[in-house]
Amino acid sequence: MEEIKITRAQTFKEKPDPSTLVFGKAMTDHMFIVDYDVGQGWHDPRIVPYGPLAIDPAAKVLHYAQEIFEGLKAYRTADGSIQLFRPLDNVRRMNDSAARMSLPQIPEDLALAGITELVKLEQEWVPSAKDTSLYIRPFMVGLDAALGVHSSHHCQYIVIVCPVGAYYPEGLDPVKIYVEDQDVRAVKGGTGMAKTGGNYAASLRAGDRAEANGYSQVLWLDGVHRKYIEEVGSMNVMFKIAGKILTPDLNGSVLPGITRRSCIQLLKDWGYEVEERRISAEELFEAAENGTLEEAWGTGTAAVVSPIGELAMGDKKVTVSNNQIGEITQRLYDALTDIQWGRAEDPHDWIMKLC
Amino acid sequence: MEEIKITRAQTFKEKPDPSTLVFGKAMTDHMFIVDYDVGQGWHDPRIVPYGPLAIDPAAKVLHYAQEIFEGLKAYRTADGSIQLFRPLDNVRRMNDSAARMSLPQIPEDLALAGITELVKLEQEWVPSAKDTSLYIRPFMVGLDAALGVHSSHHCQYIVIVCPVGAYYPEGLDPVKIYVEDQDVRAVKGGTGMAKTGGNYAASLRAGDRAEANGYSQVLWLDGVHRKYIEEVGSMNVMFKIAGKILTPDLNGSVLPGITRRSCIQLLKDWGYEVEERRISAEELFEAAENGTLEEAWGTGTAAVVSPIGELAMGDKKVTVSNNQIGEITQRLYDALTDIQWGRAEDPHDWIMKLC
Repeated sequence: MEEIKITRAQTFKEKPDPSTLVFGKAMTDHMFIVDYDVGQGWHDPRIVPYGPLAIDPAAKVLHYAQEIFEGLKAYRTADGSIQLFRPLDNVRRMNDSAARMSLPQIPEDLALAGITELVKLEQEWVPSAKDTSLYIRPFMVGLDAALGVHSSHHCQYIVIVCPVGAYYPEGLDPVKIYVEDQDVRAVKGGTGMAKTGGNYAASLRAGDRAEANGYSQVLWLDGVHRKYIEEVGSMNVMFKIAGKILTPDLNGSVLPGITRRSCIQLLKDWGYEVEERRISAEELFEAAENGTLEEAWGTGTAAVVSPIGELAMGDKKVTVSNNQIGEITQRLYDALTDIQWGRAEDPHDWIMKLC
Repeated sequence: MEEIKITRAQTFKEKPDPSTLVFGKAMTDHMFIVDYDVGQGWHDPRIVPYGPLAIDPAAKVLHYAQEIFEGLKAYRTADGSIQLFRPLDNVRRMNDSAARMSLPQIPEDLALAGITELVKLEQEWVPSAKDTSLYIRPFMVGLDAALGVHSSHHCQYIVIVCPVGAYYPEGLDPVKIYVEDQDVRAVKGGTGMAKTGGNYAASLRAGDRAEANGYSQVLWLDGVHRKYIEEVGSMNVMFKIAGKILTPDLNGSVLPGITRRSCIQLLKDWGYEVEERRISAEELFEAAENGTLEEAWGTGTAAVVSPIGELAMGDKKVTVSNNQIGEITQRLYDALTDIQWGRAEDPHDWIMKLC
């Protein structure tokens, strides 16, 4: 791998008070960039001062959304060291996303080095207050300055990082979720399995509407039948129904979440039966009405685990686990965050120690 | 409306040879920009030298594809004057796209002034060779530098322009089209009716694959049943079957094309029956096999009208109008381009004379 050239910032930002962190706003002093050109491959990996990118107004990313991203975190442990959680899973998923979006594959060692070297350089930015971490956002964009609808020959892979608190200001308080019956986030054959901008763009209106109506997020239904549950907001979703854990299967329009995968592993470790399958909203509401819906939660890197306390669909409203954090939800949150922050053993080799 | 402030370029690019124009690459010397901020509305409209945009690496458009665009053209007529074709339709469609993508509505006079004032300033860039024009690309992007999945509070509407020849290097030669049976471009409830990046991003892989297999474009099927025809490449599509014109109806996942609408009007003017309805790929291939598929063509601003000479689906291949330009296809192309370039009357008030 080509050596990463480092250009240090001349001025440094003030680090934000960890108690007032807003998710994804306090970018650090540096960023990692590497260029790709057809025929040349990936070249010129570098860490440079954080600042605006000079992007041609005709660049593909601004018109045809040729863009993918990942999200992971660096955690400060009690002894002051810094570690990552399953970073190679993010790199591999980025390459899966790249394949769908006609972006180039990036060598795993290069993609990973962009993450690890930047975090090491910015290690003072990794906060140590409870529930805080350094959020890492690798992304790849197509940059050809040409308005024809074609894949880019020139791309960049960029990593930016920022200290974060919890994603939801509510913290682990249960959130109210609304079953979206108008907009669709993704459909089989589309881009739902890829972490690409278009899926999120498609979700903004419903998110705004949910918020305006007093809900935190929407529960997405599938685009074909409009009845099977896919995700919640930008998270995967799980339910405990009659003692069993249910989660939508990875059918092509659901993001293969790394927190999802980790939760399934932990649940199996603990002896739970986990069913990955189609779950209709009707089945869910019936379970709520007959008292077998015991818990519901979202899973994602940003929020880790987010308990669902209320579900609404049309005129129907149901409360889940008395609008309290359920036992499994709490246990998953504790187990995952204990591993992530180094407070517990790491039986599955999920942790990469950094410095 | 606030006055547009003009900052002229200090150096000027050489204008490209009109015979070698590649679509969408030769940007002119200036661009139009206007900012939007929640609470302040649209402000600071300006024309500035064309050049890279300084975009924060955390900007929404780079991660969540909050972006929409339009495409139209300025035409030079025989007397040297310059005119636009249905520009207000583009502005209105942009506002429809904005509503779906949680972007702000832009006043029609402001959006239009961005187009007309830029074209007037760049009038020397409007080419006069046959089939050439100045392509106009208005677009709007969400620019908040924050990684939470939310609509942007800060946006820009930008207009860039470039002289173009024909979109397809083949010109009006019939193209070979392949029925895409793997990827889906859009689904009802999604963003197919909006001119937004995600739809185009979703289409890139299939376009690459078609090209690698010797086809110009793909024919998109609907995302629900995977059997009804929606668009061809990034164009609307029309068929002449047994004397009647058929085109997919605007069902929510099909772009309401302005060239589509214009073609339908002309066809009705000429006494043709035009049916906007569901058309299955099966129906299309049956018509081809029993000899009633007389013509097939795509419609769009860039290519105007693009004849389809061959259709392939799985192992089946059919030739359309002996791989020649059909009579209606040619008549539509001639009628539209004659109006656009001022060679014919404009019975429907589609033309806006500029200078």
